[in-house]
Amino acid sequence: MTHDLIDRLRLIRSPAIGPITFRQLIARFGDPAAALAAVPDLARRGGGRAPNLFNRSDAEREIERVDQLGARYLALGQGLYPRLLAEMEDAPPLLMAKGQLGLLERTAVAIVGARNASAAACRFARTLAHGLGQQGAVVVSGLARGIDSAAHDGALESGTIGVVAGGIDIVYPPENEARQKAVAEQGMILSEMPPGTEPRARHFPNRNRIIAGLSLGTVVVEAAPRSGSLITARLATEAGREVMAVPGSPLDPRAQGCNQLIRDGATLVQSAADVMEAIRPFEGKVESAPAAYQARVAQDSAQDYESALGSVEELLGPSPVPVDEIIRLSGAPSGVVQMALLELDLAGRLDRHAGGKVSLR
Amino acid sequence: MTHDLIDRLRLIRSPAIGPITFRQLIARFGDPAAALAAVPDLARRGGGRAPNLFNRSDAEREIERVDQLGARYLALGQGLYPRLLAEMEDAPPLLMAKGQLGLLERTAVAIVGARNASAAACRFARTLAHGLGQQGAVVVSGLARGIDSAAHDGALESGTIGVVAGGIDIVYPPENEARQKAVAEQGMILSEMPPGTEPRARHFPNRNRIIAGLSLGTVVVEAAPRSGSLITARLATEAGREVMAVPGSPLDPRAQGCNQLIRDGATLVQSAADVMEAIRPFEGKVESAPAAYQARVAQDSAQDYESALGSVEELLGPSPVPVDEIIRLSGAPSGVVQMALLELDLAGRLDRHAGGKVSLR
Repeated sequence: MTHDLIDRLRLIRSPAIGPITFRQLIARFGDPAAALAAVPDLARRGGGRAPNLFNRSDAEREIERVDQLGARYLALGQGLYPRLLAEMEDAPPLLMAKGQLGLLERTAVAIVGARNASAAACRFARTLAHGLGQQGAVVVSGLARGIDSAAHDGALESGTIGVVAGGIDIVYPPENEARQKAVAEQGMILSEMPPGTEPRARHFPNRNRIIAGLSLGTVVVEAAPRSGSLITARLATEAGREVMAVPGSPLDPRAQGCNQLIRDGATLVQSAADVMEAIRPFEGKVESAPAAYQARVAQDSAQDYESALGSVEELLGPSPVPVDEIIRLSGAPSGVVQMALLELDLAGRLDRHAGGKVSLR
Repeated sequence: MTHDLIDRLRLIRSPAIGPITFRQLIARFGDPAAALAAVPDLARRGGGRAPNLFNRSDAEREIERVDQLGARYLALGQGLYPRLLAEMEDAPPLLMAKGQLGLLERTAVAIVGARNASAAACRFARTLAHGLGQQGAVVVSGLARGIDSAAHDGALESGTIGVVAGGIDIVYPPENEARQKAVAEQGMILSEMPPGTEPRARHFPNRNRIIAGLSLGTVVVEAAPRSGSLITARLATEAGREVMAVPGSPLDPRAQGCNQLIRDGATLVQSAADVMEAIRPFEGKVESAPAAYQARVAQDSAQDYESALGSVEELLGPSPVPVDEIIRLSGAPSGVVQMALLELDLAGRLDRHAGGKVSLR
């Protein structure tokens, strides 16, 4: 049980510290121990009280539990942590993984879709997943009912990764028990939540960003408008990945989401060959973004940011504003603004919103 | 019965003279009478015998017959001749029209698709046609079984144009007799073939170019790969018009053609509103292309082209070559090369192929 892992866990399990704040703390202070030590002071500078930090014995207990479950931690920026996922600004600082870890080194494609999909669409998803496996790709999905389940089934022998919204030891939905067990043995299960966490509605979009982030491309098979699958597709687009959709008749309400995705620019795919052709340009484009990101932040943060805190606070209000706009309006280097936001965040005075927006609490 | 019409008819009904040759003759000689008079000499210069010209009494008989049928001629570049169709290089020099000629002044959208379409797709086509009618568009189609018939039915009250492959008095397929009569009365029927012509396989692609040419955009609803509907779509693309397709499940073989079209860049449409949105950018872009084309040819042809004939002939062989390439390789002005090709054509020594290619016979 390394001190580094304990400190990472204490940081990310602290309620005030999300993935972005975590990353900024590491970028600023170099390692988890130094970040942990700095948090109380930062929060005070941001005008708040020292946040509650996850305590050491709870962290040790979680690590033991993960070990008992036959799972292991993957830390952002270290060892086996999935390279593509690490490119996302809000990549989970720690993941728990169980199964064939070698799958993380292969090209991954996500297949997602409706839980109440038609039998034909499920059959299509299974065939597609099988075909992608034949071509050497790992199939990523969310172990939900419908399309997700079909995708895992089709790729069970060739390689599949199930990303769950709750703890790695929690089966959801219940009828997927045998499937989740099979994926954990023949494939791999990933989670960012502590063991024992029951999945709630708010966990699913977070889970979806991991699915999108792990994969060079995301294929949507049958999805209703405003469904979780479309969130995954949007997250994939935002991460610069390929978004693909399987079309359907305009008369079929379950095809509306996919057809709209295609109208919005997603690639229409009808086969595994189509998918492989679509993701090919994305292979090799992968760079180690976190390193670049850290370098940028570290460079800026060498400057004095004392004076910026006041102006950043002035620019914020109760309406969410893009961080980029705060940076532009403040005239300060981005690292300085990020530090100021970090302090406000740790002081419990900042809310972070989708699309890189922030507001004062 | 005007002499101009008789002369036009004599030219275009002569076996050696197709729409492109017709247009070049008019551009070179100014009017049909002068063109008719010049043909024998041109053919001799091209190294052939004078071609058989359609004789005057046959032309007069056809004109009488068209009149008896309650139809009328529309001459390229004159009066009611459809402006968008006139933009095509191979626009029919003469059309026969029967019905509500005012329809030619409204925005037209083509709906085409499989003859053996599913009942659901036919219902969709009918609803789409009706919706387009509500938005003020005229629906153009080919009076075939399946999608074409459904499209005409949906737009019968709001305005529809049926383009037939045979003579304007020939019903095909036979079960469409009542429908064709209704379209001729409430809408309009168009044909470029002489009355009495039974439609043959080779006539259908020619008919399809009229459908594509009349319309700002073409919507394909259910089409098999390598079907006539895809030819219409290709012709629409080549004419710079919007090509739209209605998607379907990859599991449905009848959706393959449409899905492939979308992969190739066609706009996915699910409703009349989608179609109207897609064609909007094309409205107003219409220019009187034939006038521009004629001006260009006339300017060039003022030059002496005697010397070019030999070099053009040398550049030609039994394999089809693009006219543009002949122009480039010959170094002669395009009008000069076109004249040389025209002479070879009238001499019966030239074959014209799809895509603007020519070969020596």
